[in-house]
Amino acid sequence: MSAKAKIGILGASGYTGAELLRLLIRHPRVDIALLTADRRAGKPMSDVFPQFSPYALPTLVALDGVDWPACGLDLVFCALPHGTTQTVIRALLAKAPAIKVVDLSADFRLADPAAYARWYGHPHAAVELQKKAVYGLTEVYRAQIKTAQLVANPGCYTSCAELALIPLLKANAIDPDEIVIDAKSGMTGAGRAAKEEMLFSEVSEGFHAYGVGHHRHMAELDQEFSLAAGRQVVVSFTPHLVPMNRGILSTIYVRGVKASAQDLHALLLKSYANEPFVHVLPFGALPQTRHVRGSNMTFIGVAADRIPNRAIIGSALDNLTKGASGQAVQNMNLMLGFPETMGLEQVALFP
Amino acid sequence: MSAKAKIGILGASGYTGAELLRLLIRHPRVDIALLTADRRAGKPMSDVFPQFSPYALPTLVALDGVDWPACGLDLVFCALPHGTTQTVIRALLAKAPAIKVVDLSADFRLADPAAYARWYGHPHAAVELQKKAVYGLTEVYRAQIKTAQLVANPGCYTSCAELALIPLLKANAIDPDEIVIDAKSGMTGAGRAAKEEMLFSEVSEGFHAYGVGHHRHMAELDQEFSLAAGRQVVVSFTPHLVPMNRGILSTIYVRGVKASAQDLHALLLKSYANEPFVHVLPFGALPQTRHVRGSNMTFIGVAADRIPNRAIIGSALDNLTKGASGQAVQNMNLMLGFPETMGLEQVALFP
Amino acid sequence: MSAKAKIGILGASGYTGAELLRLLIRHPRVDIALLTADRRAGKPMSDVFPQFSPYALPTLVALDGVDWPACGLDLVFCALPHGTTQTVIRALLAKAPAIKVVDLSADFRLADPAAYARWYGHPHAAVELQKKAVYGLTEVYRAQIKTAQLVANPGCYTSCAELALIPLLKANAIDPDEIVIDAKSGMTGAGRAAKEEMLFSEVSEGFHAYGVGHHRHMAELDQEFSLAAGRQVVVSFTPHLVPMNRGILSTIYVRGVKASAQDLHALLLKSYANEPFVHVLPFGALPQTRHVRGSNMTFIGVAADRIPNRAIIGSALDNLTKGASGQAVQNMNLMLGFPETMGLEQVALFP
Amino acid sequence: MSAKAKIGILGASGYTGAELLRLLIRHPRVDIALLTADRRAGKPMSDVFPQFSPYALPTLVALDGVDWPACGLDLVFCALPHGTTQTVIRALLAKAPAIKVVDLSADFRLADPAAYARWYGHPHAAVELQKKAVYGLTEVYRAQIKTAQLVANPGCYTSCAELALIPLLKANAIDPDEIVIDAKSGMTGAGRAAKEEMLFSEVSEGFHAYGVGHHRHMAELDQEFSLAAGRQVVVSFTPHLVPMNRGILSTIYVRGVKASAQDLHALLLKSYANEPFVHVLPFGALPQTRHVRGSNMTFIGVAADRIPNRAIIGSALDNLTKGASGQAVQNMNLMLGFPETMGLEQVALFP
Repeated sequence: MSAKAKIGILGASGYTGAELLRLLIRHPRVDIALLTADRRAGKPMSDVFPQFSPYALPTLVALDGVDWPACGLDLVFCALPHGTTQTVIRALLAKAPAIKVVDLSADFRLADPAAYARWYGHPHAAVELQKKAVYGLTEVYRAQIKTAQLVANPGCYTSCAELALIPLLKANAIDPDEIVIDAKSGMTGAGRAAKEEMLFSEVSEGFHAYGVGHHRHMAELDQEFSLAAGRQVVVSFTPHLVPMNRGILSTIYVRGVKASAQDLHALLLKSYANEPFVHVLPFGALPQTRHVRGSNMTFIGVAADRIPNRAIIGSALDNLTKGASGQAVQNMNLMLGFPETMGLEQVALFP
Repeated sequence: MSAKAKIGILGASGYTGAELLRLLIRHPRVDIALLTADRRAGKPMSDVFPQFSPYALPTLVALDGVDWPACGLDLVFCALPHGTTQTVIRALLAKAPAIKVVDLSADFRLADPAAYARWYGHPHAAVELQKKAVYGLTEVYRAQIKTAQLVANPGCYTSCAELALIPLLKANAIDPDEIVIDAKSGMTGAGRAAKEEMLFSEVSEGFHAYGVGHHRHMAELDQEFSLAAGRQVVVSFTPHLVPMNRGILSTIYVRGVKASAQDLHALLLKSYANEPFVHVLPFGALPQTRHVRGSNMTFIGVAADRIPNRAIIGSALDNLTKGASGQAVQNMNLMLGFPETMGLEQVALFP
Repeated sequence: MSAKAKIGILGASGYTGAELLRLLIRHPRVDIALLTADRRAGKPMSDVFPQFSPYALPTLVALDGVDWPACGLDLVFCALPHGTTQTVIRALLAKAPAIKVVDLSADFRLADPAAYARWYGHPHAAVELQKKAVYGLTEVYRAQIKTAQLVANPGCYTSCAELALIPLLKANAIDPDEIVIDAKSGMTGAGRAAKEEMLFSEVSEGFHAYGVGHHRHMAELDQEFSLAAGRQVVVSFTPHLVPMNRGILSTIYVRGVKASAQDLHALLLKSYANEPFVHVLPFGALPQTRHVRGSNMTFIGVAADRIPNRAIIGSALDNLTKGASGQAVQNMNLMLGFPETMGLEQVALFP
Repeated sequence: MSAKAKIGILGASGYTGAELLRLLIRHPRVDIALLTADRRAGKPMSDVFPQFSPYALPTLVALDGVDWPACGLDLVFCALPHGTTQTVIRALLAKAPAIKVVDLSADFRLADPAAYARWYGHPHAAVELQKKAVYGLTEVYRAQIKTAQLVANPGCYTSCAELALIPLLKANAIDPDEIVIDAKSGMTGAGRAAKEEMLFSEVSEGFHAYGVGHHRHMAELDQEFSLAAGRQVVVSFTPHLVPMNRGILSTIYVRGVKASAQDLHALLLKSYANEPFVHVLPFGALPQTRHVRGSNMTFIGVAADRIPNRAIIGSALDNLTKGASGQAVQNMNLMLGFPETMGLEQVALFP
């Protein structure tokens, strides 16, 4: 590989595409060689996101027209809608067998074809790839990601909750049957599609739950929590939308198993002592979304509930950065042999 | 009593004071005769809240200078800070023994002097009044409120959660030991005091929990839930601040006792069938804060969790209206023999 | 006419439709007999705007299916899109010749067919009605509105600027060639259509001008300012979108003609001394949108610029209330012989 | 000078202090050696701004206790309140005569002692320094800044308007007597002091003008515009507060002198062709604050007004970055001989 890797972004006109660009424009080892956006093909990126006007970037092209061998890309980020992605990636890998892929959709997150079919209502169209895909929660699957060709970047809600709970479940420190995750997300998590319920006038000065009892991120949580606990885990999970742009805060209610809230805090502190992008706050302090905005950081806090043996855990990240595009770049760094933090050092934007 | 009751507002320069005025200016049976605000004494209300410029209102006066017998008030709303209120009301009733009081502070909400001392860190200064005060959750204590001289208007978080849970606890339909209340409030709930953490630049684009494990509204919840269940109840309760002005949404995780989620929904529907200010949504629908903004309505919804036997209940109200000043006016109507809904018919302001 | 007038709302699923309902549900002389919304026909209003769940309202029907004579309506509010409205109203009046109409679209605001064709790019389809329509700026055309069959409710930007400037132009107190109107509107002014640029994530933390040099409200301003000045007036007008829901603030730069800023203030004060819905602030104070939110009030202020002979005028109203549906109800009251302020007494919602 | 310059921030607990840190933590040639904050002395920076928790930073100290010679700083940023700054810097330079200073207050922006006294109400306390201070609008005073010891960083409003207008005034392309600047700023421009009018509940859903006719940034505008035009210039300038955190948009009304709007656009395009931090949009496009958020960019656009010979210019920057701390770092880079864009390459954060 040359000094700079050639990368592409499929689906560059959405929010995760823009966030990838924001991070990659400054990445010293990356050459942005391809940007696709079917509905905007032929237009400059500055038409779609004017903040990129000052930068020289490839013109947007349609996915179907890409000549993959001629592109000579080292890696693509796939920021396409759920469902179609599996077909796109299968076709892409047929034409460019050496290319590496970080997929930001949900298509390759579930390892079990039956679980996929159950949650998504149709059989998976690329089962052989599904088997090879590595789940891209970097802190947990770092070794596998380094050698993976296809990484399934986790969902934003799931990264947030999994970083807080996986170390506790692995240590059998909490009761897997008594986990309640009350999650709150900024609006960018809902994407850029024009829908009435996402209009400013609908959302501003409002707050509400959605997907109650049946949100698809549950499938990912089930998979990863069960792996961590070594038994089947099913959690209560309720997502909400907050009138803000970026950030997820998960308030998580757990019960210690021979472990006090302080013990849980100590366990997390130890687990993440050397992680550049997970920061555990002092005991009793819970995180705030504003303090991770625009950064690749996850802030985790633990406090004791007033009910004995129960703890309240807060986990906060920026849904577009560590919850999506930032973690995708983190995974790219591992896959291409770059320092893991390269291009991700930006400090949170607050205020 | 004459056709119009003479009322006063003690502490008119805060948000609950302004909300009382918004409602009472249009109330057909009320004459606003006294407005106090110590730091703004001598100023017109339009200096403090310019939206009242077009209305003729009494000039703000200092509390100490009020000649109570001369005022001849029928009822006062007390919107003063916690702690000092008990002394103020004791003194006031000494001078004007026939006056009725709706207190919006926390001072008279707890019936038990020991509980008060434990939660507030000092003995109650008006224990004899504490005994006579009626807890002002109108839908539950309507009969007592009608004949009360002193009504302790409930807290905003507590009204929201209690309206959702008291009928279920009274019916023994949920397990009292397994209640988790994850509450989210708009910023007006934090009042008008100038504090750094409440500045726009701190709050906007932010979301966070606070008072984790030790919020004072827990004392009220304990009291009312224990009364409803007929045994001691202690709940998990975590409040959060949302970057919006008005509204509380409580997401409540409960477990049925020989009762499905549908049973819980049916029970709430029946309980509130004739209540003008509590509306139960169709099964599966959860409420949104925007749909109650500026109204005296509480919207309650019930959905099944995917974990058997568990349900997720949403309860939404406007913290300044049904959560404070609206319920105060509702209580005043009962105390003065007016129709309960008088002056409270405004439809929610959305968008 | 019976004690209650039967009214209909054509296009009830948009923001101005919802605002009309908010006001009319409480109007003591109105019976809401018809609600149309083509795409939502057959659904209850609570599906479209859940805040109306507690109220009994007619089911939404398609416009084409209405049996006008059977309906027996006294008046309809027409909240349909620009362009189609003229055809709809022409057809409606053919079938129900006695019905009165308050039209909230732009279709009948311009009296001159040539001006209409120039600004809207096509000839007017109901020129004969265009001639009979009365421009519904209530404070200026009160006498004509009382006897009108068809009232063209003004645009939100135009009401805001015209109330501030028409008295000054009529008095020849300002130079008509030197008016700059820098207007800022909340997002509800852009309606409820699902468009990318109106998503929360696009708008929040953003601020920008639009329609620079060619906004259609200019045509209205030209017409009314020219009438007031008795000569042709063309103004600089630049609208902006503010990340908030409701409210317009126009900052207007004018130059006195033998009139100081104080003189302009005195003139406005005198002009609106008896108007229930226009309030002139003390000299030097400029209005804020929050103080008129949800009310039918316009607040106007005048300050001196530091450049001699120039003044800065601020005018604020709620674009959905006085800027649209509130003024529509005000006009209905005049057309049906009700007190002008009936149903419009709500105090502004702040905070 | 060693490879890394040692720098200090005086007044690190405010918003401009935090923004300096955000930028400097990643600056490859800077060692952050001193952070002062009198009221927070002894505390870690993470207490004041938790987003800095993951970074090793000096503990906050009181200004009075600093041993300047021992510190051996190369440069300090002074982010202290207006008025006291002049005394602080005079004392500091007496103790550390070689230190360089970028002052973010208003104290050294006005070159004329008489103008200072007139606008600020008291004589300047360091007139000799006032004479030596260089006005820090980088694009205009680059050469002087390179050799300056004391740079007076411009105000946020003034940078925004001056970058748009100075090239036009220098070229005599617009009439200096006919400039109207209608400016809108996010709330961080008002600082972090706890004031009632800056509370979230006051600001959200609100919009208003302030300082009408007498804002202190006028003095800077007068000074720089007069220098550019070669004659006295006095402009109309009205600032407004927008319910958002970051960003200033100035909408500027100008009249060409033998220059069309297109000519003005071409002139700006040429002036800024090689500037890294000023980007001129295509003719007719006006800038939006969201597209510069968190970046050091200024976006400028020009459109024709419908009135002949008039143009509307939009200028947008992030008040904390190019409007304050970003430009301060840009100036530091020049003063210390670093590449001008070092540490300032971050792309705007949108959404």
